[in-house]
Amino acid sequence: MKKGKLFGVGVGPGDPELITLKALRVIEESSVIAVPGERAETSTAYRIALGACKNLSEKETAALPMPMTKKKEILRESHLHGAKILAEYLDQGKQVAFLTLGDPSVYSTYLYVKKILEGQGYDTEMVSGIPSFCAAAAALNVSLSEQAESIHIIPASYPIGEALKLSGTKVLMKSGKKLGEVKEQLLARGADVKMVENCGMEGERHYLSAQEMPDEGSYYSLIVVKE
Amino acid sequence: MKKGKLFGVGVGPGDPELITLKALRVIEESSVIAVPGERAETSTAYRIALGACKNLSEKETAALPMPMTKKKEILRESHLHGAKILAEYLDQGKQVAFLTLGDPSVYSTYLYVKKILEGQGYDTEMVSGIPSFCAAAAALNVSLSEQAESIHIIPASYPIGEALKLSGTKVLMKSGKKLGEVKEQLLARGADVKMVENCGMEGERHYLSAQEMPDEGSYYSLIVVKE
Repeated sequence: MKKGKLFGVGVGPGDPELITLKALRVIEESSVIAVPGERAETSTAYRIALGACKNLSEKETAALPMPMTKKKEILRESHLHGAKILAEYLDQGKQVAFLTLGDPSVYSTYLYVKKILEGQGYDTEMVSGIPSFCAAAAALNVSLSEQAESIHIIPASYPIGEALKLSGTKVLMKSGKKLGEVKEQLLARGADVKMVENCGMEGERHYLSAQEMPDEGSYYSLIVVKE
Repeated sequence: MKKGKLFGVGVGPGDPELITLKALRVIEESSVIAVPGERAETSTAYRIALGACKNLSEKETAALPMPMTKKKEILRESHLHGAKILAEYLDQGKQVAFLTLGDPSVYSTYLYVKKILEGQGYDTEMVSGIPSFCAAAAALNVSLSEQAESIHIIPASYPIGEALKLSGTKVLMKSGKKLGEVKEQLLARGADVKMVENCGMEGERHYLSAQEMPDEGSYYSLIVVKE
């Protein structure tokens, strides 16, 4: 039997209308919808896709439990476990759409599972999604870069001291629990800061300076720092 | 009369299927389609939108001539001229969709025209598009960032020596005529390089090392440099 193909499908940052035509087609053509999490139906990516693809709930789902940890061994084990679940569907010739928030090439769990399955000879393809930082710029109605400016996308769950010194626009992702620390550093630099919480989701909120920023933020907080 | 609203609409990097549902809706709801260039119908952004929106050719178009120059005065003048053209439509209460390649917040001409019109009191909104670097990562089937990695988006039409030293993934945009110079620098650093030319368009081509890269590239060349 011909093996199924795995698609890593970006569903964008929150608003179901920010899904692309291609993502919608690939989801509709897939038999199995894979999502990281304990239960597919309650995951954010699944709910976004459901907003654009009404027959989604008729499809088979594969939930891939992924613990929120930086411990490499635990992560590696859950990636291998996820890949094993998907390999079973692919071996049955089924097309699998692995949904990712934002874009699959940017900090997605899909990347690790894909690598394992590629190593095992499976065919994979990425379908781009709107990354959260583009949606945040649109929500704030500001540019990320003009003319000679660079853009630096920084995972703020790791230390960011050096990154803040870079010239150009800095986008801090995944601040979450470290938001208090990040805020202090931004205040100390007197930086031009804007933040979006839950962009395109329920509870979307904007903060237009470092002073306004809360000390703890949701996982979906995104900060744009201008020169 | 109520003034019309200006939308900066990202149509993605080339493949009409990479347009979002929202971009398609906003284009369909708009009376006027604005595009930078001498003639709207021959511009890349217009042709991409036409691939997804069949009744596009029935809409009024506004071509905004934008010279390819770094001379600030000439640029400023063409932005002011473009804003003036659009203001006339907005004053007639017409909704205008200004099409941009990729995402409007990333190096788009829209940003300058929007700023002028906002200063004159017009209402504007950005509609995100898939940026070229996400589409290039998908075309190459590689990640842009994993775990603690940063992403640096660099306009390579300006000097890039310092930028190449940054840790994380570097994306070099707009190399075009400077490609030979850029290639030399990448070879000197022995960097892990992949390049996509005309991503999602006719003549899409991949180069999987700096050695393979040509000495001149199209305006739509994009280079991914990994650590």
